Amino acid sequence: MTIPPCTDSMLKDGTFDGKTIIVTGGGTGLGRSMGQYIAQLGGNLVICGRRADVIAESAAEMAEATGANVMGQACDVRDPEQVEALIDAAIEKFGSVEGLINNAAGNFICPTERLSYNAFNTIVDIVLRGTSNCTLAMGKRWIEAEQRGSFLNIVTTYAWTGSGYVVPSAVSKAGVLALTRSLASEWGKYGIRLNAVAPGPFPTEGAWSRLMPDALKETFDASHRIPVGRVGEHQELANLAAYLMSDYSAYINGDCITIDGGEWVRAAGQFNGLEAVSSEQWDQLQASMKPKKG
Amino acid sequence: MTIPPCTDSMLKDGTFDGKTIIVTGGGTGLGRSMGQYIAQLGGNLVICGRRADVIAESAAEMAEATGANVMGQACDVRDPEQVEALIDAAIEKFGSVEGLINNAAGNFICPTERLSYNAFNTIVDIVLRGTSNCTLAMGKRWIEAEQRGSFLNIVTTYAWTGSGYVVPSAVSKAGVLALTRSLASEWGKYGIRLNAVAPGPFPTEGAWSRLMPDALKETFDASHRIPVGRVGEHQELANLAAYLMSDYSAYINGDCITIDGGEWVRAAGQFNGLEAVSSEQWDQLQASMKPKKG
Amino acid sequence: MTIPPCTDSMLKDGTFDGKTIIVTGGGTGLGRSMGQYIAQLGGNLVICGRRADVIAESAAEMAEATGANVMGQACDVRDPEQVEALIDAAIEKFGSVEGLINNAAGNFICPTERLSYNAFNTIVDIVLRGTSNCTLAMGKRWIEAEQRGSFLNIVTTYAWTGSGYVVPSAVSKAGVLALTRSLASEWGKYGIRLNAVAPGPFPTEGAWSRLMPDALKETFDASHRIPVGRVGEHQELANLAAYLMSDYSAYINGDCITIDGGEWVRAAGQFNGLEAVSSEQWDQLQASMKPKKG
Amino acid sequence: MTIPPCTDSMLKDGTFDGKTIIVTGGGTGLGRSMGQYIAQLGGNLVICGRRADVIAESAAEMAEATGANVMGQACDVRDPEQVEALIDAAIEKFGSVEGLINNAAGNFICPTERLSYNAFNTIVDIVLRGTSNCTLAMGKRWIEAEQRGSFLNIVTTYAWTGSGYVVPSAVSKAGVLALTRSLASEWGKYGIRLNAVAPGPFPTEGAWSRLMPDALKETFDASHRIPVGRVGEHQELANLAAYLMSDYSAYINGDCITIDGGEWVRAAGQFNGLEAVSSEQWDQLQASMKPKKG
Repeated sequence: MTIPPCTDSMLKDGTFDGKTIIVTGGGTGLGRSMGQYIAQLGGNLVICGRRADVIAESAAEMAEATGANVMGQACDVRDPEQVEALIDAAIEKFGSVEGLINNAAGNFICPTERLSYNAFNTIVDIVLRGTSNCTLAMGKRWIEAEQRGSFLNIVTTYAWTGSGYVVPSAVSKAGVLALTRSLASEWGKYGIRLNAVAPGPFPTEGAWSRLMPDALKETFDASHRIPVGRVGEHQELANLAAYLMSDYSAYINGDCITIDGGEWVRAAGQFNGLEAVSSEQWDQLQASMKPKKG
Repeated sequence: MTIPPCTDSMLKDGTFDGKTIIVTGGGTGLGRSMGQYIAQLGGNLVICGRRADVIAESAAEMAEATGANVMGQACDVRDPEQVEALIDAAIEKFGSVEGLINNAAGNFICPTERLSYNAFNTIVDIVLRGTSNCTLAMGKRWIEAEQRGSFLNIVTTYAWTGSGYVVPSAVSKAGVLALTRSLASEWGKYGIRLNAVAPGPFPTEGAWSRLMPDALKETFDASHRIPVGRVGEHQELANLAAYLMSDYSAYINGDCITIDGGEWVRAAGQFNGLEAVSSEQWDQLQASMKPKKG
Repeated sequence: MTIPPCTDSMLKDGTFDGKTIIVTGGGTGLGRSMGQYIAQLGGNLVICGRRADVIAESAAEMAEATGANVMGQACDVRDPEQVEALIDAAIEKFGSVEGLINNAAGNFICPTERLSYNAFNTIVDIVLRGTSNCTLAMGKRWIEAEQRGSFLNIVTTYAWTGSGYVVPSAVSKAGVLALTRSLASEWGKYGIRLNAVAPGPFPTEGAWSRLMPDALKETFDASHRIPVGRVGEHQELANLAAYLMSDYSAYINGDCITIDGGEWVRAAGQFNGLEAVSSEQWDQLQASMKPKKG
Repeated sequence: MTIPPCTDSMLKDGTFDGKTIIVTGGGTGLGRSMGQYIAQLGGNLVICGRRADVIAESAAEMAEATGANVMGQACDVRDPEQVEALIDAAIEKFGSVEGLINNAAGNFICPTERLSYNAFNTIVDIVLRGTSNCTLAMGKRWIEAEQRGSFLNIVTTYAWTGSGYVVPSAVSKAGVLALTRSLASEWGKYGIRLNAVAPGPFPTEGAWSRLMPDALKETFDASHRIPVGRVGEHQELANLAAYLMSDYSAYINGDCITIDGGEWVRAAGQFNGLEAVSSEQWDQLQASMKPKKG
């Protein structure tokens, strides 16, 4: 029995009225879903991406869909100057910024020994340096202006277990998680909160399935791997992200919330492979079993 | 600058229409706040506690306050028979149960070497055995009836860091956290979700401050210990708990969400004590500082 | 390429000269391997188990094998009086006790919904209550006598990830881990250290393979699951346990060391299933792959 | 009662005979203590640092002290070419390399909002990029040569709790921990193990106390913060590091061992501040206390 997805909006209309939220990498994928929901709830939205034409088109579509103010600006988060320009433009346009979602990321799925130094560093630069840049730039402005604000950092379930085959991403996301917890401690006194979300499998168009050889698809089949029996629905992540960016979560600080249907705990637990035992086999086993000392 | 508390209801009215939720120990304290909010959102509520008269009075007050159906029944969660009777009565009255919050708990604040075996075991029995009993009883009924359901287990931030002076509670809450993750893996296939919440300091009447010697109150002063600069507001926990019990969180499974204003990350980080350094001292330090190799 | 096992003694002869170590459940399995190595290194050894005849025979064999003093005494760790009697007897015989390994345990491998309350509680009583009893009894004596001492608690890798199918054990071992960390904080001032070890797959005679249906053996095949390509060798655990009980580890306190060949990180990491991709498939994939934005 | 430090060599002479170990940043501080002990146990040692004259002098002193072969070479770990040159030189001189300790690091103790992008990135480059460079370069050679090998990565206790005032270091060390776990999974099949150590307070000459304002020294006083009542002794870390680099730990893979006297668990646990309550106050409290429900 699977647990059916939730596709309803959770928060009340107007939750983000008068607030401006920046979502890096917000033109596509999960970033777009999170940003569009915030816009739908009344927020002004600022999205950025590396390509000016793509981000402009996304912004236009998202404004059309939500009726909100959506500003798109090209920005390579690896470059502090572009990050500062983005934030300054957002403040100039909307007066202030109340939140920032560090969502821009990159990944290679590849055996680590096949990666060049350059490939490895590219991911670290986008994910870790990009997030650090945005966090420093935004945080300094909030502290300077004595204004409260909230960060949400998108990480992964392997940020702290690690994972092979995505090592530059694992390394970087772990760094982002530590950034979250560190500054949650240090910047609380300035009225700044930081939290993280670790999404499990939320399919985005093409990217993942295009890369996956057919032979592997069964290995990664959600119904085998994930306790709730399915992949995630974008609105489910959007509800969580909007909650964490809103004042409703004002007492959550320094936390990382996993939304993966139970995927990682299912994979990690030593005896969970016993799910392959049938009910009849358990009947037989139980007949012969006594508590094991050891 | 503190982060102001949120006292607004987050979810839409009617979120729990037609649903019945059991909250153990729901007649007082945080259990009452969580339960009352669920009732306010349209749910039928079942609360229990050890004393029949107290729980009946609480149920009456909560029904009055919310206009919802609130059933109170005496139940010592340490006793499987009483637990089964509670659940059976809830099903008989409301037709089915959709969720259960394992909230009943007990604690001694005491140096561990001063505890008798009996005192130690009493806490383990209430917290860990009580939660296991309720979880087994409810889970077996859901599996038998092929009905979906959701558990929320209330733990503590010291469930996994441990803590002196509350050791029986630490031990038990750690067990409850493992129960949460274990069954999130194992029972997902039956449509059952389990999550946990670790609340930081949410004052409840009397209990804590009554016990605390004046000399210690400064040590535990929220404005020194907690990044957001204050203790938690009950509605903030109620919003989170209601979210986790609702279908909005259908893809969160096996997770433990900390809501403590950043208290534990602030305490844990090795260099966070440097908050005592003044801005002028940092000016002096920086003047003399270079990157340290080591 | 597997990493070959180490079967050599690590510590110097005489490391435990003049010291007495209690190992609960030390007559068989891993407890016996740890205890026998301590005896081999010069320690007086005290082992206990529920059956007097079995424990007496084990003690005699271990004394014969090592030339050390090995005392065996029947003791059900669930009963505080028996635990106190064991410790008193050890002190009477050897003058003092310097360390205690909480190794006695029990486990059912079974779907949780098939467990009775009684079965569930039996495991909790052996593992968690037994460990608490031994720790309270020993700790109180050390504190009273103003004598230093060291605990080593044997847990599991699923103590904190949780695991289905062994839930009472998971719950209890999580509690033991919290006990370890809590008292490491609280009892350091009395000169008492506590640490834990989480062993992965170390085969013991019969127990495990006897229970496992043939159809499942491949699922749990070490060469697929464990990065180092094999199960553990008892001496490898014995070396670690002896280190943690010796003064060499005097600055390790409150830690849990995992010795599992990398089993749990391999299982937990989201993309580790990609190990099934062949080198040729990677060649093809890489040819078509670009960094994924997302 | 403090737990006295251990200053004895733990492992047998000759443990590293015929083996060559690289220690980055091995000319001073903890790196020197770890390296020198490995040399004392018969290993060939390769150390590196940024300044050629300093590293040459250290190498000469360490060779003199141990009678071992100690090679010193200037190397900035941020530069892959220098890293490759270092490893190639080590292989040319000694025939092969069996282990590498990623110890080179840097740190700023500073409020994060005072850091420039450049300062932040400098630490990330030294710690995270440096470690990644060395790990990639060494790992690729081992995989190519079909030779087994072992990494030890030096992290910090705040690698995963985070910490304010050392944020670039926290971020980087978290990344290094994820690197450790990720490649422990992925590279086990090549016979490569990776582990980490998180040392607590091990004083090194000058660095720390020089930076610390007198007013703060009490805050960081070991006897208040650390359960075992003292800072660490270098030999205690050296014993652990040598164990993890030796074949004795062949079944430990992907783990991070904390050696901090219990500092972090003591800081993290919510009620550990109650250590300030005197014995007499507890007497009074207990007289008035009953188990708290809630």
